[in-house]
Amino acid sequence: MNPTLDLTCELIRRDSVTPRDEGCQEAMIARLEAIGFTVERLRFGDVDNFWARRGTTGPLLCFAGHTDVVPTGPLDKWHSNPFEPEIRDGHLFGRGAADMKASLAAFITSIERFVSSHPDHPGSIALLITSDEEGVATDGTVRVVDLLEARGEAIDYCIVGEPTSTSELGDTIKNGRRGSLSGTLIIKGQQGHIAYPHLAKNPIHLMAPALAELATTVWDEGNTYFPATSWQASNLNAGTGATNVIPGTVELKFNFRFSTENTAESLKAGVHAILDKHGLDYDLVWTLSGNPFLTEPGALTDAIGGAIEQVTGLRPELSTSGGTSDGRFIKRIARELVEFGPINATIHKLNECVKVDDVELLSQIYEKTLIALLAQR
Amino acid sequence: MNPTLDLTCELIRRDSVTPRDEGCQEAMIARLEAIGFTVERLRFGDVDNFWARRGTTGPLLCFAGHTDVVPTGPLDKWHSNPFEPEIRDGHLFGRGAADMKASLAAFITSIERFVSSHPDHPGSIALLITSDEEGVATDGTVRVVDLLEARGEAIDYCIVGEPTSTSELGDTIKNGRRGSLSGTLIIKGQQGHIAYPHLAKNPIHLMAPALAELATTVWDEGNTYFPATSWQASNLNAGTGATNVIPGTVELKFNFRFSTENTAESLKAGVHAILDKHGLDYDLVWTLSGNPFLTEPGALTDAIGGAIEQVTGLRPELSTSGGTSDGRFIKRIARELVEFGPINATIHKLNECVKVDDVELLSQIYEKTLIALLAQR
Repeated sequence: MNPTLDLTCELIRRDSVTPRDEGCQEAMIARLEAIGFTVERLRFGDVDNFWARRGTTGPLLCFAGHTDVVPTGPLDKWHSNPFEPEIRDGHLFGRGAADMKASLAAFITSIERFVSSHPDHPGSIALLITSDEEGVATDGTVRVVDLLEARGEAIDYCIVGEPTSTSELGDTIKNGRRGSLSGTLIIKGQQGHIAYPHLAKNPIHLMAPALAELATTVWDEGNTYFPATSWQASNLNAGTGATNVIPGTVELKFNFRFSTENTAESLKAGVHAILDKHGLDYDLVWTLSGNPFLTEPGALTDAIGGAIEQVTGLRPELSTSGGTSDGRFIKRIARELVEFGPINATIHKLNECVKVDDVELLSQIYEKTLIALLAQR
Repeated sequence: MNPTLDLTCELIRRDSVTPRDEGCQEAMIARLEAIGFTVERLRFGDVDNFWARRGTTGPLLCFAGHTDVVPTGPLDKWHSNPFEPEIRDGHLFGRGAADMKASLAAFITSIERFVSSHPDHPGSIALLITSDEEGVATDGTVRVVDLLEARGEAIDYCIVGEPTSTSELGDTIKNGRRGSLSGTLIIKGQQGHIAYPHLAKNPIHLMAPALAELATTVWDEGNTYFPATSWQASNLNAGTGATNVIPGTVELKFNFRFSTENTAESLKAGVHAILDKHGLDYDLVWTLSGNPFLTEPGALTDAIGGAIEQVTGLRPELSTSGGTSDGRFIKRIARELVEFGPINATIHKLNECVKVDDVELLSQIYEKTLIALLAQR
């Protein structure tokens, strides 16, 4: 009998490929309403979200996460049906097992036990759950945060259940994320026959020194919490296919992952300065996926770090590496925010799985965090 | 009554899209056999070629050309049927009018008049005609040249009938061509997630400084007859399409047009030196389309230059610019080789045409060249 494992399996059976929820949220809501939560169902566009809260005073501890999962990929390469949870060799297999249905189940069972033992806990507990984190993420968490912000409902402590552990459950907490800024650059030349280069302007040649400079520029050195800002080219395309034609344009797509030592504006200015210095004629379209955010060590990192150490014996590392998450939206209204969840080695892959033992341990970690932040005041 | 124009029209009516000949060569052969030529039909693969010769002694003056034409492109954009010659505004329209059926007709009629007036001319006259110059050019002129070389049949003077005039008939003779050397370069990195650049090696970044150096290297300054060697990138492709993935490889296609100040080997060595200096891991496949060749001013350029001046009043410029031609193959067995033909402004385009008056003038130029080289000895 393991209620967290049971609920994880129940959620995996619902094939909630993004942005579908397939009843996951109603299953969670039923359990939350049974223990005194007030639930607001917030459907934006095709996306199911909910905000649940127990208590009216501060501090407010919020668990955040998503019920949607990424597509399975080729089914014949899965060793078992990705939507029929199966335990083999001490692991629970299924799409979403690690990202992040075990975390959702652990949220519920940890809260159930905590409320049972502390029915009159001080402060408030909340859940912010979306079904559009793996997709375009426009009608999900960001819309709920907009609503909370509009009515002045701020979060003191937020735990996002993303799978942050790398080798062992508890080895890593994310206490921030780098910013992500992308650009699509079109460098313009003049098309012509390769035998008559004086009648053309080769944009590949014009681009090359600027590309070399962009690739070697040190944007910053990072700081205590962030690695150095990184600029990476992802796609580079020029040419008509014909080998005797100088192309008219080059398209370069690139991305910054950036620390708090820079801003989107400072990086944009830096890129434009390099392109202009090299006298290029270009169009450049920018997309800001998220600004960097950081929670410095304090009450929340102490509480969850202590809980992890009690349950696993590990002292977690604080990290800001890796990709973006919905934390970038919630940080806007959350004083302190961390991400913590199971081992992420198999997420988005075939045969996604989570260690069976980790599912219950995760629930215990969340429960001890609740106790540290809400019961021991 | 204009026999050169008539024969040009007869050849245009045969839709000899490369590598088809559609009877053009037999039409020429009938006329040549009637005036004492010995003709060898040389079919290699799908390609018709012939070698015709009148006389057994030296010097040997050879006219070279091709009966095949490039495809028409969209027929509805032609003002008249490309295979039904039509005269409008003093121009003869049809696919191949300028490249190079007017030249073929002018070869025949100039030789007919010359043989009629000089039936016992000293030396020999030859024609080397292929139907695969516009295509892959593997079973055409190069195979005939192989055969002639194998039996020791060398050419003293060769006139290739390519359309070399730019603004007015007679303004330009090509007395050589640059070499053409192409490369397909794969630069190898290591694919990875853009958020974890330390786990990947971005081949776009690795390539950039080498690309900048290749684009700015001065390979040579050219010489009296050749412009400086030119290196041009034509196609550059990297990326998975996804914007969060560092690609594993970059593919760069490039081409040298090179003077006699370099060789294919010296240019290959130069590129490898730059790539190696930048520590790149790469594959590079080379394709040599042709070495540069040159005919210095002498008997042939004097003869055809004088003929042009007599007929048109222009003093032609000697040039080695532009693309490749079958001259690159023939030069191997030809002591002196030039290319001369009508205005090339419309070749390979829609509504290809030649000036009606130029057709007969071209025949006169070839005739006076025959007289200068074979009758005035």
